[in-house]
Amino acid sequence: MMKKNYLFLSVLLLFAFSNSHAQSGSEAIKEDFKPSSKNQPGKDYPQVNSQGYARFRIEAPEAETVHVSLGLGGRGGTKLTKDSDGVWWGTTEGPMDEGFHYYHLTIDGGTFNDPGALNYYGSTRWESGIEIPAHDQEFYALKNVPHGNVQQVLFPSPSTSSVKRAFVYTPPGYAENSTTRYPVLYLQHGWGEDETAWSNQGHANLIMDNMIANGEIDPFIIVMTYGMTNEIKFGGLRDFKIEPFQTVLVDELIPFIDSNFRTLSNKDNRAMAGLSMGGMETHSITLNRPEVFSYYGLLSGGVYSPEEIKEDAGVKMIFISCGSKENPDRVKTSVNALKEAGYHAVSYVSEGTAHEFQTWRRSLHEMAPLLFK
Amino acid sequence: MMKKNYLFLSVLLLFAFSNSHAQSGSEAIKEDFKPSSKNQPGKDYPQVNSQGYARFRIEAPEAETVHVSLGLGGRGGTKLTKDSDGVWWGTTEGPMDEGFHYYHLTIDGGTFNDPGALNYYGSTRWESGIEIPAHDQEFYALKNVPHGNVQQVLFPSPSTSSVKRAFVYTPPGYAENSTTRYPVLYLQHGWGEDETAWSNQGHANLIMDNMIANGEIDPFIIVMTYGMTNEIKFGGLRDFKIEPFQTVLVDELIPFIDSNFRTLSNKDNRAMAGLSMGGMETHSITLNRPEVFSYYGLLSGGVYSPEEIKEDAGVKMIFISCGSKENPDRVKTSVNALKEAGYHAVSYVSEGTAHEFQTWRRSLHEMAPLLFK
Repeated sequence: MMKKNYLFLSVLLLFAFSNSHAQSGSEAIKEDFKPSSKNQPGKDYPQVNSQGYARFRIEAPEAETVHVSLGLGGRGGTKLTKDSDGVWWGTTEGPMDEGFHYYHLTIDGGTFNDPGALNYYGSTRWESGIEIPAHDQEFYALKNVPHGNVQQVLFPSPSTSSVKRAFVYTPPGYAENSTTRYPVLYLQHGWGEDETAWSNQGHANLIMDNMIANGEIDPFIIVMTYGMTNEIKFGGLRDFKIEPFQTVLVDELIPFIDSNFRTLSNKDNRAMAGLSMGGMETHSITLNRPEVFSYYGLLSGGVYSPEEIKEDAGVKMIFISCGSKENPDRVKTSVNALKEAGYHAVSYVSEGTAHEFQTWRRSLHEMAPLLFK
Repeated sequence: MMKKNYLFLSVLLLFAFSNSHAQSGSEAIKEDFKPSSKNQPGKDYPQVNSQGYARFRIEAPEAETVHVSLGLGGRGGTKLTKDSDGVWWGTTEGPMDEGFHYYHLTIDGGTFNDPGALNYYGSTRWESGIEIPAHDQEFYALKNVPHGNVQQVLFPSPSTSSVKRAFVYTPPGYAENSTTRYPVLYLQHGWGEDETAWSNQGHANLIMDNMIANGEIDPFIIVMTYGMTNEIKFGGLRDFKIEPFQTVLVDELIPFIDSNFRTLSNKDNRAMAGLSMGGMETHSITLNRPEVFSYYGLLSGGVYSPEEIKEDAGVKMIFISCGSKENPDRVKTSVNALKEAGYHAVSYVSEGTAHEFQTWRRSLHEMAPLLFK
């Protein structure tokens, strides 16, 4: 069991660090660069063009070297060069994958963020973020439709002797329909991230708002908390134990949510899903505590095999996804085996994306209509 | 009127940029440094000692100069020096004022954040933050008491053709007491900040949670939105007009809040307050729209004179505060004049603090019990 977890984690972390974000550029670079939508207010750089190239501009007149971690994954990112005004410039060697990317600067050997970009929690630190506009970006765009709220809750966690934070998405209409009760999806971030990721990077709230406005789904609540994953390092993977987080989630957070929100507080109306290490947590917790959740989702976060699932678990739907640049065959094979064993299982492969948030935005968008049916 | 506003803004901005954060150190520096409570998870630096000195550690082995903007305000902050391992170190020349401070690094002439610290929106950018533990920090500490929620709402703003964001603090018990209605405080940030400031830097939610738990106040709602102040530059102060924000706040946000939260939606149960430029906005909007608010608060944000207030305005309480390192005489003179004119006016001076968040945390703590009485 320990050994299996170790291999599983290794695969996840391998994906997390081996993304090839960009391909080598063959066509001419179009000079239609615009500020990234993830820039700080009023900041002109970094910029992105219609082909998916990113261009960086950094002021550091006396620096010796300035380097951006984005670009050609395995080949060390993008090296900037200084102009005669002491400003550093650089453009990625090729177009980047659609969607959101974390990055940072290396300035004279130190790691810093790009002062032009907003910061997002990934790799166990607040990193710079950039957005390559995707052809399907409308499904997570901020539109003039009714919006749900994302609220920070602080809940007591006796098992860890602390007060912990979660974010709760309540759908539009939650306040007005003061007697309606809603199903709940517990949705986990990946390694290096925290409970802010699904809203900030993932736009989970906007994905829900838009699908509800379009009549594609019935409203439900999403709860996002910290998965306690970030103490895990490469060397320490063997030591990862699910029990401490399982206790926080199942025995502390769920009762808190059920008593503070108008939930349908039963197994049939409760789902758990997670991306990357959050998928691993989903896998372990749904199997360990089959009485809690009916819907399971693994987003670039491993697979289930039919024999792992208890016969009387009463699972209603299993969703397994990844990007086409990850290992889609493994996802499809698993879902086929689950189907053969009689489970309602659905696979999804995000075309042209790797182990990154565009895969997970799309996965949430595909999974949401399958929940609570 | 324009000229008056111009002078008023000049005074505010003068305060904002002339803080003397620290005094020159005379006693020996105690080696009891601990990580700042505003550090990123797991980061050991920056550190603070029991006297209020701050110590910085930056990795940038090939950099020529590394400088921290904090230290002796007027004297250019703290210059770091490189050790034989290529790590830069520095300690402030004297102890810093208690509370929260924004800062940034200058590395080889470029402006960057400290990778060890969390970021806070101030000076129209996400800046590094550090916390000097205050003798009275218990009133905004995270304790194991019932907690209210801070929720992000997205509201339509036809006047600006956009969807705008606000954060809403709902007190503990809001969900359970499903018929109770609450008064509302509209609370504004200062120049360079945004709607995240009062929760992130100000801990407004924790101040409320603790006061409610102690029975010091009856629960109320706080609404924080972006004051549209950050396009104002030194040269452009004359151009500041309150009307665009006044329309967003009074004609768009308040109706949205009243229809989406269980508010007591009348003037007697509505307060407006703000810090620095948010105080200026409070001053203008409460005077322009006397039918909307009954309680007014200016936190390091100017004063009222009795003749400005319409006789039939029906103002129930005016709270005016600042730090002892700002201009307390002006605050006291104003409050005395208001009292003489028959208003219920209260002044507060935060001892030993300047134009910074410790002044405003304390001001909220002093003002809250005076609201909605």
